Amino acid sequence: MLKLYHAPRTRSQRVLWLLEELELPFELVTVPFKTPSSDFFAQETPLGKIPTLEDGAVVLCESGAIVEYILERYGDNRLAPAIGAPERGRYLQWLHFAEGTAYLPLGVLVWLTRYRDDAEKHVSLLEDLRHRAACGMAFIEEHFGEGPWLLGEQFSAADVMTGFTLTAARNLGVLDERYPALMDYFSRIEARPAYQRAMQR
Amino acid sequence: MLKLYHAPRTRSQRVLWLLEELELPFELVTVPFKTPSSDFFAQETPLGKIPTLEDGAVVLCESGAIVEYILERYGDNRLAPAIGAPERGRYLQWLHFAEGTAYLPLGVLVWLTRYRDDAEKHVSLLEDLRHRAACGMAFIEEHFGEGPWLLGEQFSAADVMTGFTLTAARNLGVLDERYPALMDYFSRIEARPAYQRAMQR
Repeated sequence: MLKLYHAPRTRSQRVLWLLEELELPFELVTVPFKTPSSDFFAQETPLGKIPTLEDGAVVLCESGAIVEYILERYGDNRLAPAIGAPERGRYLQWLHFAEGTAYLPLGVLVWLTRYRDDAEKHVSLLEDLRHRAACGMAFIEEHFGEGPWLLGEQFSAADVMTGFTLTAARNLGVLDERYPALMDYFSRIEARPAYQRAMQR
Repeated sequence: MLKLYHAPRTRSQRVLWLLEELELPFELVTVPFKTPSSDFFAQETPLGKIPTLEDGAVVLCESGAIVEYILERYGDNRLAPAIGAPERGRYLQWLHFAEGTAYLPLGVLVWLTRYRDDAEKHVSLLEDLRHRAACGMAFIEEHFGEGPWLLGEQFSAADVMTGFTLTAARNLGVLDERYPALMDYFSRIEARPAYQRAMQR
């Protein structure tokens, strides 16, 4: 059975949410999140990172990789357009953008304001980061399309990857009324039962 | 025909290298890299980011998404294990790890030391970042396996994604003799004709 190592409010929320959407059986191992200090891979999981997924001999620790792996292996063609389908490019774009571009300044904000104790020394950096994070929000807002989801009528794993990023952006004060399409989108995300189940664990 | 917007020493090097490995026809549009200041998406490409790939109506700007898209559509089963193959999980892991974890502190280092002019104010941050970047190198070193490539005998797009990250790490002084397996691996990467062709453009 799939085994997921999870800590609340970390990227493992994406994997947990995906598993809830797919209604797949899995074992959940909740571990404490240890604030990174000397070792950045020292979480209590097989690879030292959160999330970590075990599927027999396969052990993965990158949320985007885990999402793709689960869908390929157990998704039964759900939550992703087929390879070669017209929406496939857009799907891959948002899947990677969620972490590679949009989450990056949010992760650095968390590092500066929550892991370190000297945020007041870096006022100008924090301003710069908040602006950079806002540029990511503005990009999604501009290219969001007709909705209700990133691929239109089809809810997909791109929404799962992006939805966690928006959750973090909201918590950090980056996602707000400046982005009306995103705020509506985020309300739809929060209304999904699978999202709610994942957030409660 | 595929059209790639490229600037030397940016993530577009990954896409260019991949296209050279696959020997696919493409149009290359070299644009100047503009140091991000007020707008982080203001490069001279259709989406304001580098790389941007155009394939008819499909326009993508995230290197990982572009790599996956090109392989799915034009790869002809080269440079990636088939879906469901034993090495597929490991492939996805390294594909995402290269950007999501290993590149992240390198990108922040570039931002602090090259885009901003106040690096001397952030000595402790820079130390922290260098350490974090080193943890990423150590993780790849530890899990590298038998080689010569990340998936063993099969060179794949995971090596392309990771190879660019190692190129940046080498330039930033993060990749060095502390990581003998990675240094050997990087030598093999630098010896590939397609890598050399991509780096010269």
